Amino acid sequence: MSTTRERVSAEFKRIQNDICHALEQCDGQAKFHEDRFTDRGEALTRVIRDGKVFEKGGVNFSASSGTLPPAILDQLNVKGSEYFACGVSIVIHPQNPWVPIIHMNIRYFETELGESWFGGGIDLTPHYVDQADAKYFHKALKSTCDGWKPEAYPDFKNQADEYFFIPHRNETRGIGGIFFDHLKPETDGSFDELLKFVVSVGDTFAPTYVQLVNGKKDLEYSEANKQWQLLRRGRYVEFNLVYDRGTKFGLQTGWRTESMLMSLPKMASWEYNFIPKAESLESETLAQLKGGIDWVNS
Amino acid sequence: MSTTRERVSAEFKRIQNDICHALEQCDGQAKFHEDRFTDRGEALTRVIRDGKVFEKGGVNFSASSGTLPPAILDQLNVKGSEYFACGVSIVIHPQNPWVPIIHMNIRYFETELGESWFGGGIDLTPHYVDQADAKYFHKALKSTCDGWKPEAYPDFKNQADEYFFIPHRNETRGIGGIFFDHLKPETDGSFDELLKFVVSVGDTFAPTYVQLVNGKKDLEYSEANKQWQLLRRGRYVEFNLVYDRGTKFGLQTGWRTESMLMSLPKMASWEYNFIPKAESLESETLAQLKGGIDWVNS
Repeated sequence: MSTTRERVSAEFKRIQNDICHALEQCDGQAKFHEDRFTDRGEALTRVIRDGKVFEKGGVNFSASSGTLPPAILDQLNVKGSEYFACGVSIVIHPQNPWVPIIHMNIRYFETELGESWFGGGIDLTPHYVDQADAKYFHKALKSTCDGWKPEAYPDFKNQADEYFFIPHRNETRGIGGIFFDHLKPETDGSFDELLKFVVSVGDTFAPTYVQLVNGKKDLEYSEANKQWQLLRRGRYVEFNLVYDRGTKFGLQTGWRTESMLMSLPKMASWEYNFIPKAESLESETLAQLKGGIDWVNS
Repeated sequence: MSTTRERVSAEFKRIQNDICHALEQCDGQAKFHEDRFTDRGEALTRVIRDGKVFEKGGVNFSASSGTLPPAILDQLNVKGSEYFACGVSIVIHPQNPWVPIIHMNIRYFETELGESWFGGGIDLTPHYVDQADAKYFHKALKSTCDGWKPEAYPDFKNQADEYFFIPHRNETRGIGGIFFDHLKPETDGSFDELLKFVVSVGDTFAPTYVQLVNGKKDLEYSEANKQWQLLRRGRYVEFNLVYDRGTKFGLQTGWRTESMLMSLPKMASWEYNFIPKAESLESETLAQLKGGIDWVNS
C-alpha cells in the first residue's frame, strides 16, 4: 500500500503534467522546458517562455525530505524534525494585457511524528478587471470548494483577500481567489478527504484559466494597455519580493533561486507616481483592488 | 546661533540642489520635477524622467521630526522619543547600458536627549564593470575619506561590500563603494568634524558620477547590451525590495511609498536561468560582483 507521501507525490506530479499539457495546447507554440534536480528529493522546474499566448510562466513540482533545523521547527510549530514537503507552484504571465496573471499553489507537509497539513490556493491578477471574468473565476473556485463543504469558499476567499494584500500600496494584488493553510488530517477532515479537496483545486486550475485566456488572448491592445500591464507587473514583483511567505521562506532557507523566482515577469515597469485618468479602465481596475468584494453574487 | 538640526538641514538641502543642477546639466534635456510634502517636516521628492542620459532617477531630501513608537525606540536603541531625522537619498538609472547605476545616501538622526549619529555612503552598480572606471570611482571615494582620516576608506569600503550583497544570488549589487552608519558625535569625532565629512561625501557625488557618465553616455550599444541592462536592473530591484534596510524600514513605518520606490527602474527584466556566454563581457562582469576587490590598487 502506498504511503501518504507517495500518494501526494503521485497526484501532484499528475497535476503538473496535466496543467503543462493544457497550457501548451492553449499557447499553441511554446513548450515547457524542464530542469530536474534530485539533491534533496526531486524538483521538476518547468518554464514556458516567449509563447504566442504566455510570455513567461512556471509550473513547478517539488518533493523534498530531510532534517529541519531547530529554528524552522519553532517557526512551523512541529516536534518531528524529519520532514517531507511536496508542492506544485504556478505563476503565469501572459503576453496580452487583457489576459490576467494567475497563481496557484498546492502543498503538503508531514513529519515522521505524523504531524501534517495541506495548504494552497488560486488567485487571479487581471491587469484590467473584467466583471464577468471575475464572477466566472470565483464561481469556479466556489464550486470546487462546495465539492468539499459549503463553509470552505467564504473562509478561503476571505483568507485570499487578506493574504494577497500590498500594505504599502493599500491595494490587493488582484481580485483574490482562495487561500488556505494548515488543513490538518486530525482536525479538518480525513487525509483522504483533504487530499481529494486539494487535488480538486489543482484540477480546477487549467480548465478555468484556459477559458479566461481563450476569451481574451486575441483581443487587440494599445501601447498604453501594454504599459499599464508592465506597471501592474511591477506591483506583482513588489508583492512577491516583499510579502509572499513562500518566497521569503525560500530565500532564507536557500531553495534554488531560479526555480522560485520564475514567478517574476519577463518585463516590469515602475513610473514615479503614475495616476490613471479618472473614469479610465485603469482607474476602474484600481478601485476594485480591495478585499471584501462578493464576486459570486456581484 | 543655528541648532544642529538647522545646520544639517541647510547643508543637505544645498547638496540636493547642487546635485540636481549638475545632473540636469549633464542630461541636457530633462529637468527634475519636485513634489513637496510638509506633513511631518519637509520632504522634497525630486524625480527626473525620460531624459537624454537619465531614464529615471530621484534625488530626495527629507527632514522630519515627531515621536518614535516604543518598538522603534528599541530597534534604534535610543531613550529619547522626540526625534529629528534628515537625509538625502539618490538612485539614478541611466538610459545607456554602458553608464552605471549609482546610489547615494547621507543621513542624520538625533533625539531630544542628544543621542545622534550620521550615516551614508555611495555605491556604484555598473551593468558592465569597467576596470578604469571602478578604480577612478574608488579613488575618488578614498580621497574624500582620507580628507577625514586614513582608516575611514578601508573600513567603509568593507562595510559597503558586506551591505550591498544579495545572498540568494551570491553576488554583490555592483562594485560597492563606501557605507557607514552610527557615526556618533560622542565617540567618532566632534559634530562639526562628522558633519564636514558627511557633507564632503555628498559633494563627491556629482563631479564623480558626471565624469563617469560623460565618458560613456554617447557609446553605441546593441539590443543584447540593453537586455543585459534590464536583467541587472532586475537584481537591483531584488536587492532593494528584499534586503535594503532603508526601504524595509520605510515600508514598515509607512513613509510615502512613491518617494521611497523612486529607486526602482523604469524597466526591468527577469529571464529564467540566464547564463551569459563564457568569456563574454557579461560573464566578466559577473565574476567581479564579489566583495574584497582592492579597486584602488588594482
